[in-house]
Amino acid sequence: MTAARLVIIGGDAAGMSAASKVRREDPEREIVVFERSPHTSYSACGMPYLIAGLVDSPEKLIARSPQKFREKYNIDARTGHEVTELNLTSQRVLVRNLETNSEGWEPYDQLLIATGAEATFPRLPGSDADGIFGLSTLASGIRIQQFMDQQLPRRAVVVGGGYIGLEMAEALVRQGLQVSLVERGEQVMATLDPDMGAMVSEALREIGVSLYLNESLTGYETAKGLVTGVVTDQRTLAADLVIVGLGTRPNTALAEAAGLTLGEKGSIRVNPRMQTSAANVWAAGDCAESFHLISRRPFHVALGTVANKQGNVAGINLAGGYATFPGVVGTAVSKICNYEVARTGLMEREMHDLGLAYKTATTTSKTRAGYYPGAGWITVKLLAEQGSGRLLGGQIVGLEGAAKRIDVLATALTANMTVQQLVDLDLSYAPPFSPVWDPVQTAARQLAGLLR
Amino acid sequence: MTAARLVIIGGDAAGMSAASKVRREDPEREIVVFERSPHTSYSACGMPYLIAGLVDSPEKLIARSPQKFREKYNIDARTGHEVTELNLTSQRVLVRNLETNSEGWEPYDQLLIATGAEATFPRLPGSDADGIFGLSTLASGIRIQQFMDQQLPRRAVVVGGGYIGLEMAEALVRQGLQVSLVERGEQVMATLDPDMGAMVSEALREIGVSLYLNESLTGYETAKGLVTGVVTDQRTLAADLVIVGLGTRPNTALAEAAGLTLGEKGSIRVNPRMQTSAANVWAAGDCAESFHLISRRPFHVALGTVANKQGNVAGINLAGGYATFPGVVGTAVSKICNYEVARTGLMEREMHDLGLAYKTATTTSKTRAGYYPGAGWITVKLLAEQGSGRLLGGQIVGLEGAAKRIDVLATALTANMTVQQLVDLDLSYAPPFSPVWDPVQTAARQLAGLLR
Repeated sequence: MTAARLVIIGGDAAGMSAASKVRREDPEREIVVFERSPHTSYSACGMPYLIAGLVDSPEKLIARSPQKFREKYNIDARTGHEVTELNLTSQRVLVRNLETNSEGWEPYDQLLIATGAEATFPRLPGSDADGIFGLSTLASGIRIQQFMDQQLPRRAVVVGGGYIGLEMAEALVRQGLQVSLVERGEQVMATLDPDMGAMVSEALREIGVSLYLNESLTGYETAKGLVTGVVTDQRTLAADLVIVGLGTRPNTALAEAAGLTLGEKGSIRVNPRMQTSAANVWAAGDCAESFHLISRRPFHVALGTVANKQGNVAGINLAGGYATFPGVVGTAVSKICNYEVARTGLMEREMHDLGLAYKTATTTSKTRAGYYPGAGWITVKLLAEQGSGRLLGGQIVGLEGAAKRIDVLATALTANMTVQQLVDLDLSYAPPFSPVWDPVQTAARQLAGLLR
Repeated sequence: MTAARLVIIGGDAAGMSAASKVRREDPEREIVVFERSPHTSYSACGMPYLIAGLVDSPEKLIARSPQKFREKYNIDARTGHEVTELNLTSQRVLVRNLETNSEGWEPYDQLLIATGAEATFPRLPGSDADGIFGLSTLASGIRIQQFMDQQLPRRAVVVGGGYIGLEMAEALVRQGLQVSLVERGEQVMATLDPDMGAMVSEALREIGVSLYLNESLTGYETAKGLVTGVVTDQRTLAADLVIVGLGTRPNTALAEAAGLTLGEKGSIRVNPRMQTSAANVWAAGDCAESFHLISRRPFHVALGTVANKQGNVAGINLAGGYATFPGVVGTAVSKICNYEVARTGLMEREMHDLGLAYKTATTTSKTRAGYYPGAGWITVKLLAEQGSGRLLGGQIVGLEGAAKRIDVLATALTANMTVQQLVDLDLSYAPPFSPVWDPVQTAARQLAGLLR
C-alpha cells in the first residue's frame, strides 16, 4: 500500500467504482474526487424512466451521495468542482469551485480521468432556445422534468433514433405528449441491421409516435426564447419540447489539451490496465477507449456496464494490484414499449467494413412454449463467418422475455463459439421460459444449415 | 441416399425429431414408427400446466399428430403399436397391435430406439389402488385429469420433491386442493445444493403446501380400490389423490433383452453419433446415455431438450450425414409458484464425489435496476475449481426474470470459462432487465475474490 494521493476527475460510474475499489484495498489512501455536477454515482440509464414517471424522484437514481462517500468511505468527493486544466509535468490539476468561483491547483501522485461523455448537441439556428435538451447528466434529466412541470408541453420532437431517443420517445408518450421522432437514417436503432431496425420503427408507430426517417435536423423555430418547432431538411414540426438524442461523445477536451493520446472517436487511449499515454495518469468509463473482441480493433462505447468494469479494473491497479479489461463484444439492450431489443457483436455494415464474408439467418419463434400463457413472438438474427462458421453477431427483437437471451450470444461470441456449438449448448428449457429449442438455437440451427 | 427401411421405436421427442430430420434429408426413405401410446410428439413437460388448468386441453400439448406425420411427412407413424422383442441377428422387431392384439415381425435396415423413460413407480402395499399416478406419458396426464373430474379429490399427496413433483404440487394447489409433499431428502429439489433447495421448500410452504422432509414412502391406505392415505416411515397422510414423482428410469427392457450394452442408470450406451453397441441400431432420447461435459463422465438425463438434440443428431446420421452430440452440462429450470429455479454444472455433492477442490459464493441482488418497477430478488450461487478458477456450476433461485440467466452460466461452462472471464463478460444492461452488474456477475465478482 502506498501513501500516494489519488485524484479522480469525475464522480459517476467509472470514477466512483475506482474510488470504492481503492478504498476497499487500501483503507488509508487519500482519495479526492472532483465532480462538476451536484451528483455522484447515479444511473444515467434511468433517466428516461424518471421522465416517464416510472421512477418517482431523481434521488432514486442515485446509488451513493457525495455525503455517503465522504462519511462512510472517507472519499473526499467534491461536487460542484470542475477541473479546467491538467499539468502532466508538475502532476497537478487546476480546480474551480463552481459555487465560490475560486480556483486552485491540486497535486496528484496518481490521476484517474473519468470525465464521461456528453450529449452531442449541434449548434444550429435556434439551438439556444429553452425547451431543447440533450440528455447525459442527471442534472439534464432534472432540468427536463422541471421544464415539463412548468411549461406543460404538448408536442415533443425527439431528434435521433438511438437508445436514448427511443426510450425518451416512449417516456414522453407515457406522459401524454404527442411525440414525433426525426432520424436521418432509413430506420431507427442504427446499431441494428435495417431489417431488424424496421421492427422497432413499427413498435414506435404502434404507440403513436410519428416517425420521420431519412430526415436531418437543420435548426429550430423559436419565439420569446422558447422553442416552437424543429426544422428538418424536409419540413417543420411544431414542438414545445425537443430532446436531442444524437449520441454522445467522450468528454476529453482536458485530456487532449494536456497532450494525452486519443483514440477511437476522440476517447482517451488506454492499455488493458486503463493506463493512458502519460505516467501516473489513468482513464476509465465513457471518456476512455475500449477494445472490440470480435473486430479486434479499438472501439468506443459509452455504457454503464463498461464504465463500471473499467473503473473497477483501474481501481485494482491504482491500489497496487493487477487487473486488465479485456474488452467488449458490443452488447446493448433496450425496452421500447412492449418490445425488447438487443444486439451484440458485429452487424452487417461492420462485416462489410472489415471485409468479412458472412451468412445470416433470421427466425421468428416464441418466448415460451407455444401453449403456455404469455408466449410472445421473438425474432432472432444471427451472423456468422463463412467457412469457419464462427458466430460474429446477433440481434433480437421481441416481446417480454426476449432480450436477455442476447447474453447467451455475448458469452458465445466471447468464447469464439461456432454456430454449431451454439446449437449444441445445453440451454435451459421449461414451458414457462422457452420452447424446447431456445429461440437463439432455432436461429442457429437454420444458420448452421446455410453454412454447410 | 439409401432405400434402407428405417424403423423407429417410440414416437415422442427423440423418435419424431429423428424421423423428421431423415425425411427432410431423404424424401424417399421408408420410415416406420411404432408408438405404444395413442400420441406422438407431445410435450411431457407441459402436463403440470394441463393439470393446473393453464393449458385448456391435452391437444394443445401435441406438436404433431400421427395423422400429420403420415399425411404431411409420409412417415408411417403407427400408434397403439408396441414393440415387444428385438432380434439383432435377423434385424427384426416383434410388434403387437394393441387394438387387435395381433403380432408380427417387422424387418429393419436401420433401427432407432427412442423408447423414452418411465416414471419410477415402486410396488408397495396398496399401490394398485386407483388415484395413485405416476406422470410420464401424455396418457397418464389425461388419466389424472379424468380422475380429478370424476372423483373431485380434496386432499392430494405428492411423493417426491423433484421438478415434476413440485410443478404438480403447485398445479394441484391452483386447482384448490389441499396438498402435502413427501420428500425423503432434507430439502426438495435434490439437484440443488441444500442451501438453495431450502429456498424452494420455503416457496412451497408460502403457497400452502405441507412439506414432510426426511420422510420415505412405505405404502398406501386404500378403501374400495381407491387410495385413502399415504403411509410414510413417520405418519399416515390422508389422500384422495397421490402423484408419485420419484423420477424416471430409462425404458430399456427391450434393448437389454436384446443384449445391447447399457450404461449410466441403465440407459443405452451410445457413441457421440448415437450408435449403440449393435450394428445398424441407434438410440436417442430419455432411453439413451449422454455425456457430462464438466465431470467428463457418462451421464443420464431425461429432458426434452436433450431428446430433441439427440434425435436430430441421430436423424442426420441415419440419413447418411455426419453429426455428433457432444453432451450436456446438466442444465435444468423450473417455475414453482412465483419462484424461478435453475441449475447447471456440478453441485457440491458431485464435487465431493469427483474429488474436486472448489469454492462457492452466493449473492442476492436484483433482477432489474433497484429503482425500476418490478425489480425482484435473485440469489445466485456459483461454484468454481480452486486453483484454476474455472467455473464448475451455478444455481439460481429468484423472482420473475431470474432463471433464464442460467443459460449464461451453461454457455460459460461449455466454453470452460473461469470465474474472472464471467466477470469480464459484456452482458446486456438496461434498467428494465438488470442491475448494471448482472446478478451472475455479482456472484462471480465475489467468487473471484475468494479464489485469489
